[in-house]
Amino acid sequence: MDTVKATLVDAMHFDIEVDGHHFMVDAASEVGGIDAGPQPVRLLIAGLAGCTGMDVISILRKKRQEVTHFEVEVNGARATDYPKVYTDIEVVYRVRATTLTRHRSNGRFSYLRNGTARAMAMLRKAANITNRYEIEQEY
Amino acid sequence: MDTVKATLVDAMHFDIEVDGHHFMVDAASEVGGIDAGPQPVRLLIAGLAGCTGMDVISILRKKRQEVTHFEVEVNGARATDYPKVYTDIEVVYRVRATTLTRHRSNGRFSYLRNGTARAMAMLRKAANITNRYEIEQEY
Repeated sequence: MDTVKATLVDAMHFDIEVDGHHFMVDAASEVGGIDAGPQPVRLLIAGLAGCTGMDVISILRKKRQEVTHFEVEVNGARATDYPKVYTDIEVVYRVRATTLTRHRSNGRFSYLRNGTARAMAMLRKAANITNRYEIEQEY
Repeated sequence: MDTVKATLVDAMHFDIEVDGHHFMVDAASEVGGIDAGPQPVRLLIAGLAGCTGMDVISILRKKRQEVTHFEVEVNGARATDYPKVYTDIEVVYRVRATTLTRHRSNGRFSYLRNGTARAMAMLRKAANITNRYEIEQEY
């Protein structure tokens, strides 16, 4: 069982506690926020970025790729109607490496996939998720 | 469009950026984490806690309830099979207030509901979500 807690501090400003780690969330300014922290709905796509990032860097390391930079950007498009959920989520993986092995048979980095991350498996049920790789080889 | 970014720092430790705010996430110790931050899958339920917390505190304020303490605890039970998604999520709202108005017709705090929060609307498609109120009146 995983437990997290959000405790009201002031206005629309909450302290989030996860396993002894604390950070703040706040509302959009239209609804009383003062930018004291990220908006909480964005933690869904932040969780997705972290989860799939860990998944993919593990694969790159297992494949003995020498990665010098790795980041995951997640772009979430929201519905115009309330509750304005994310309808389409794009995941962009940016990999820079000194060696990068393509798959022998199809010339692609097909060992890279994102389907097994937990957050991905959950959010896929609520939104359309696409992904893209930007790969830069250093020599 | 909402954009977030996870950038690899070291080992399984990523910097998460959301609208200029930064915090760390890290993996579980079994897979190389050193507790440098929360595990990213937990951001899903943290986002849920923050989102529905903002929703409910807004309702309490509209109803002119004098809230002295408010927190939302979210407990997520994971599947035993990979990718070990959250299957059942319990949301516990703890409200302490000097005045608390029950609904005239049914004696319940039926103006409190959590269905409209964005994170709730999304995660409801992936997990079974239940909720419970713990209400304490101060005199």
